[in-house]
Amino acid sequence: MLLARVEREGREFFGRVEGDVIDEITGSLFDVATHEVVAQHPLSSVRFLPPVVPGTFYAAGFNYKAHNRHHEDLGYDPVKVGDRPEVGYRAQSALVGHGADIVKPDDVEGRFETEAEVVAVIGRTLKHATRDEAREAVFGWTIGNDVSAREWQHADRTFYRAKNADTFKPMGPWIAVGVDPLASTTTVRRNGEVDARFATGDMIFDPYDFIVEMTKYITLHPGDVLWMGADGNTPMAVGDVIDIEISGIGTLTNRVVADRRDTETTERMPA
Amino acid sequence: MLLARVEREGREFFGRVEGDVIDEITGSLFDVATHEVVAQHPLSSVRFLPPVVPGTFYAAGFNYKAHNRHHEDLGYDPVKVGDRPEVGYRAQSALVGHGADIVKPDDVEGRFETEAEVVAVIGRTLKHATRDEAREAVFGWTIGNDVSAREWQHADRTFYRAKNADTFKPMGPWIAVGVDPLASTTTVRRNGEVDARFATGDMIFDPYDFIVEMTKYITLHPGDVLWMGADGNTPMAVGDVIDIEISGIGTLTNRVVADRRDTETTERMPA
Repeated sequence: MLLARVEREGREFFGRVEGDVIDEITGSLFDVATHEVVAQHPLSSVRFLPPVVPGTFYAAGFNYKAHNRHHEDLGYDPVKVGDRPEVGYRAQSALVGHGADIVKPDDVEGRFETEAEVVAVIGRTLKHATRDEAREAVFGWTIGNDVSAREWQHADRTFYRAKNADTFKPMGPWIAVGVDPLASTTTVRRNGEVDARFATGDMIFDPYDFIVEMTKYITLHPGDVLWMGADGNTPMAVGDVIDIEISGIGTLTNRVVADRRDTETTERMPA
Repeated sequence: MLLARVEREGREFFGRVEGDVIDEITGSLFDVATHEVVAQHPLSSVRFLPPVVPGTFYAAGFNYKAHNRHHEDLGYDPVKVGDRPEVGYRAQSALVGHGADIVKPDDVEGRFETEAEVVAVIGRTLKHATRDEAREAVFGWTIGNDVSAREWQHADRTFYRAKNADTFKPMGPWIAVGVDPLASTTTVRRNGEVDARFATGDMIFDPYDFIVEMTKYITLHPGDVLWMGADGNTPMAVGDVIDIEISGIGTLTNRVVADRRDTETTERMPA
């Protein structure tokens, strides 16, 4: 089952995607038994929104060995992987949906990259979870692109603009329920050409490891999301179309555009 | 004007606090002209909630010189203060209101401290703000306690449990509208005794500096909060009552308690 949050003619609703149509539903998103179909629309008539707006937005970092080796190969300090997963955070303000533009700020220099991530969507309130409870608390899965401006990532004390600038967190297209992405393959395409492919489940700590550790201290709530980290980086330039496909979930597609302020400023003089 | 979000007999609402009463209001919180009083309750009959649940939860770090010197005196690397403010983040999951308990996890060791912070509550959507626009976008002010478990803060790669464990972010008691806390005094009392007192506005970067820099890259939305950092730390032990008073705003009071799991586990054996 694929559950999307969409906008159509100025109205936002949840829907079940089946082929070329979306069945508009009412009820509680995280309680499938309450879903009732109230209308049907052509899928082409809707705009995708992030499938949820999380109360708290969690993100794993440095969670694939190859990604960490790449980081070291570029001359950065070796990544210390601890004996337990330590979760980080991203900003809700940066979220956009499938099909939305990734706006590259004028002053980004150097590497501007995609990180292709599987995302666990939490469906229950839980604390002090066992591994089984952690597994049951994951309602479904979506896809995230952890867009990263590397010079800012390494120069700044925080990730406010390196990873959390507006539009830097595409998420979608929908929540896939009843799949196991730990057995999936993640494929990143840049303008239709495969740039990266890796086993989605080849993580240092899996989502359930994270949830067990996090919930020793933190209560998770329905709608919270946990982005699981990426294996590899795909460079992006203005004009590029980036697809992140995770088998069993779907494909998240976004185009990179220049900052609109730039294109609006016609009298701009050379520096 | 003092605007609180409260719970009474299972119902949540906004209200205007005047002395010992709270006037329940309807309308849009951030548009005072829409407020209509629909009921009046004794202030003692309500429980305070965090005055807003922010869409994105921003926090300045290392924003008072004396705090940074203290950090260095403890033997940590000197804080590099850049030429521009770099905002960080905290987790919505950790928020509690005035009067709620701060639950100290069983396994916290070492320094467990309060940081007394003034909080700007954003009332408008804005990007690429001028300093004047930044000033106009601050709807009002509240108080935050950036509870910090220092050993975890320095040992972990992220702040997931050092600063974002459940109950570690008391905020309240209300939003004060029409005051200027940059001319205020912050006073921290531990069990009624003054532990710290500093000029609230003695910041390295003020809230408008932050908003101008943040909105070069990030759109702010009504309800977002910006915690401004602290000057000094007050140690906390189980049983302590911590007051943070900021003149012109009010007093945020919370008691520190042991983890309930601990008190419930009566058969617990010594380690």
